[in-house]
Amino acid sequence: MKGTLTIQEIREQPKALARLLDREWPAVEAAAAGLRRRLPAGVVLAARGSSDNAALYGHYLIETVLRIPVSLASPSVVTLYRRIPRLRGMLVIGLSQSGRSPDIVEYVRAARKAGARTMAITNDGRSPLAGAAHTTLLLHAGPERSVAATKTYTAQLAILSLLVGAVAGDRRLLDDHRALPDLAEEALASEETIEGAAARYRRIERCIVTSRGFNYATAREAALKLKETGYIAAEPLSSADLLHGPIAVVERHFPVIVAAPPGRARVHLTKITRDLTARGADVIVVSSDRALRALARTALPAPGPVGEALSPHVYIIPLQLFATHLALARGFNPDRPRGLRKVTRVL
Amino acid sequence: MKGTLTIQEIREQPKALARLLDREWPAVEAAAAGLRRRLPAGVVLAARGSSDNAALYGHYLIETVLRIPVSLASPSVVTLYRRIPRLRGMLVIGLSQSGRSPDIVEYVRAARKAGARTMAITNDGRSPLAGAAHTTLLLHAGPERSVAATKTYTAQLAILSLLVGAVAGDRRLLDDHRALPDLAEEALASEETIEGAAARYRRIERCIVTSRGFNYATAREAALKLKETGYIAAEPLSSADLLHGPIAVVERHFPVIVAAPPGRARVHLTKITRDLTARGADVIVVSSDRALRALARTALPAPGPVGEALSPHVYIIPLQLFATHLALARGFNPDRPRGLRKVTRVL
Repeated sequence: MKGTLTIQEIREQPKALARLLDREWPAVEAAAAGLRRRLPAGVVLAARGSSDNAALYGHYLIETVLRIPVSLASPSVVTLYRRIPRLRGMLVIGLSQSGRSPDIVEYVRAARKAGARTMAITNDGRSPLAGAAHTTLLLHAGPERSVAATKTYTAQLAILSLLVGAVAGDRRLLDDHRALPDLAEEALASEETIEGAAARYRRIERCIVTSRGFNYATAREAALKLKETGYIAAEPLSSADLLHGPIAVVERHFPVIVAAPPGRARVHLTKITRDLTARGADVIVVSSDRALRALARTALPAPGPVGEALSPHVYIIPLQLFATHLALARGFNPDRPRGLRKVTRVL
Repeated sequence: MKGTLTIQEIREQPKALARLLDREWPAVEAAAAGLRRRLPAGVVLAARGSSDNAALYGHYLIETVLRIPVSLASPSVVTLYRRIPRLRGMLVIGLSQSGRSPDIVEYVRAARKAGARTMAITNDGRSPLAGAAHTTLLLHAGPERSVAATKTYTAQLAILSLLVGAVAGDRRLLDDHRALPDLAEEALASEETIEGAAARYRRIERCIVTSRGFNYATAREAALKLKETGYIAAEPLSSADLLHGPIAVVERHFPVIVAAPPGRARVHLTKITRDLTARGADVIVVSSDRALRALARTALPAPGPVGEALSPHVYIIPLQLFATHLALARGFNPDRPRGLRKVTRVL
């Protein structure tokens, strides 16, 4: 049946998250202990595609919780221009679910040679990426057979937040992880509602996906799923940048998806939702907050309560379901998008 | 007349660049001398909108030429989550043509307080951003009255490349700047051809804009202009990321703009252009290279020869013209896009 794999892997997320928390915690704790002994002056995250969206979450979380400046690598500096930045004393983390993205492997190898501490976050402990890095943290997501990354994405977020929590010694952040499998289960319980909403939007050809702060990553990842599986020209924008120009593109009936978790971004996202609605946009809000959902034309329920720092782990799930059911409603097979390979060779 | 301001300001670029080279060089040299005495361990660039696209160029250029790791700031870490990363020993550069983006001003203030060296790159030496930073470099672009940034964008690129050239003591890179006013003039000479091409594309509602390396910034900035002034859902993608999923969205007649300068990215961009054409995409190539232009359905001439490091300064010009004439052909006024303000207040 079409879409069986993708839907199945989306539904595996509660178990995959529980497994990760159970099996990888000792390795995360050991890696964190090493980092605590001598905090890196900076962190560089190297990734492509969905993994790069997980990296973007890492950017916000590491800077906010650990106050270590973070850079998202431009692998082309190494792979195209053959230069490696001075990375001594820095931590370079390569994220790749397959561990086989050649330019990420090359970046991590070059960084290690340049004196950086290196870490791999991957689903495959025997991959070239794991072989290239000093330390490897595993996703335990099980084989991902659909081309679109779903359970490996949420697993990458969870590894990053566990690692940051452990380095910071932030008990509350760490404890909050225990609720993730149940929250993921709660997200899945709304599948029927989401499927109905997706059917109503099956004719859209473009949309904007927006959020701010930690969930800017959610907006980017949701847009990527909509493009990959539904062939929708979905543009991700931070809601701060949306105000800085592109809001001009929003006209009547233009679909805009807002990932709006409770937390620090709430006031700003409420304002954006009101502004967009006033412009006549067709606003789809993903939120656990009923008042926020009430502002939108279409509401997708998100699980909660959940702390803002871990909300990306579960706010992406309704959007994975929305993108997949939208693809199905449009007659596409989300399991095998045309022109996509699981491992991308850039050159 | 509609579009008078935008077109006029695009056409002012040769003079604006010549003025900048003439007037700001002593200040750039002095700032570079200060930085050379003690190279920063990292550079953080803080910007929004078009300035953030200039910052993206800075990311590639600084890492490639100076090998100093660069981070693009997420201002929300400071303005939303009220945390400031540890920035002692780093150089923080705030870019804002008006010098009035409140979150960029706030970020630079917080960075200075946290012990960073700070620099403002702005068109207004009396702006709050200039007041907040230790050092200010001026764009000398003259008043920009149209809402869409054009001449201030190329001026930001020129300040960044001059500064990097001066810090590196790279005579060749510095000397190459002298050709910029003439190259900008050469770009403007193709306006009629570009206007004709824009008329043929007036019915498009969406497109992808792609490039790689230094000109990834060009792709982002061109997409922003297409959105702001032409209300086209233009999505910028690095060509490496385009292969990593979103190429699935490209179907027959889908318009894809490729900014393809000669240089390191040429082989890769040639391959992408062939792949896209094979998929039946409607490929628009911007290049000074006749062989590359011959691969496309529509060719927009770019000036050259120009070294790849300075090519973004002139490759954006045909795309500014294309976006503006496309907006006019669609019946919009590019001078005053709906819903846009010159200075964005995020909160």
